[in-house]
Amino acid sequence: MKRDFTQGVEMSHQLLKQHVKEGETVIDATAGNGYDTLFLAELVGNSGNVYSFDIQQEAIDNTRERLRLARMGDRVRLCHTGHENILDMVSEDVGAIIFNLGYRPGGKKDIKTRPETSLTALKSGLTLLKKSGIIVIVIYTGHKGGKTEREILLNYSAGLNQDKYNVLYYHFINQDCSPEVLAIKKR
Amino acid sequence: MKRDFTQGVEMSHQLLKQHVKEGETVIDATAGNGYDTLFLAELVGNSGNVYSFDIQQEAIDNTRERLRLARMGDRVRLCHTGHENILDMVSEDVGAIIFNLGYRPGGKKDIKTRPETSLTALKSGLTLLKKSGIIVIVIYTGHKGGKTEREILLNYSAGLNQDKYNVLYYHFINQDCSPEVLAIKKR
Repeated sequence: MKRDFTQGVEMSHQLLKQHVKEGETVIDATAGNGYDTLFLAELVGNSGNVYSFDIQQEAIDNTRERLRLARMGDRVRLCHTGHENILDMVSEDVGAIIFNLGYRPGGKKDIKTRPETSLTALKSGLTLLKKSGIIVIVIYTGHKGGKTEREILLNYSAGLNQDKYNVLYYHFINQDCSPEVLAIKKR
Repeated sequence: MKRDFTQGVEMSHQLLKQHVKEGETVIDATAGNGYDTLFLAELVGNSGNVYSFDIQQEAIDNTRERLRLARMGDRVRLCHTGHENILDMVSEDVGAIIFNLGYRPGGKKDIKTRPETSLTALKSGLTLLKKSGIIVIVIYTGHKGGKTEREILLNYSAGLNQDKYNVLYYHFINQDCSPEVLAIKKR
């Protein structure tokens, strides 16, 4: 018997695992300390490609080191720029994009994702997404601006054409600041 | 790769499967045509007990027949009464309760669950729920009154003490009338 429900980050990984295929190109829109990039690198395998974005040099360095230790650096392109510039770096169709919003654990808490740039990145990501591809966003509302970021992303996603996309919202409605998952699948 | 996200009814079964243990007592608060009762009867096994409620004689008959064919009638008590009377029929602690709201597929569409009685049943169910037990509610908003029922149940559940319960809401925010799942776990 499970002790509790599947939590947000675990749910995001389950969704990626269910949808990402070997050999695909995928994107980590928020490299952070590299955990999601490594997870994606394992899922796409030797023949796949991962683009991983972050504005912080330390995030890029931590991610590079994590990949080196796992010997998966070859299949990942680290992009030291904001995810609002995804279209400058990626031109091929992608099978999945993961966002882990807010600040980087262990980093400066005032360096974090912002509502406008996250929304721009989401919109750009949708143009790259192939059929049956998925965008997974883990949302944190515990930091200042987190709730605004959530509202903007939910609002936009709820307006997506229901025949072209399916938008799942997985969250705990009686908890303060529990990580939430917003996931968009292209039909 | 999955063709779409896990849908509401399938999600409700996944949650039950993750949480129900063999030998437990559990409740199907809306027997309908008996699918959930049979599913629960399989999960609790030979040593478990299922109470199954419905106000419609045809629902009770259909459920009895389904159990007979599966040779699982012994472990199920069919209760031909509304789920708002759960406490009249069940006095022991339970591991899980499932609700499948709205009308019975194949039955009369004007005979359906109602906001007030569903809320009464939910409150009663919470008093029976044992630690780590789960209440799973599949909500349908496509019929008249379905949205009101949803709002009342969500409102009440969102107010549950976060240290004592965790309340999960799983739904598709850009779809018309897609089945939704509300699940409450006792901590």
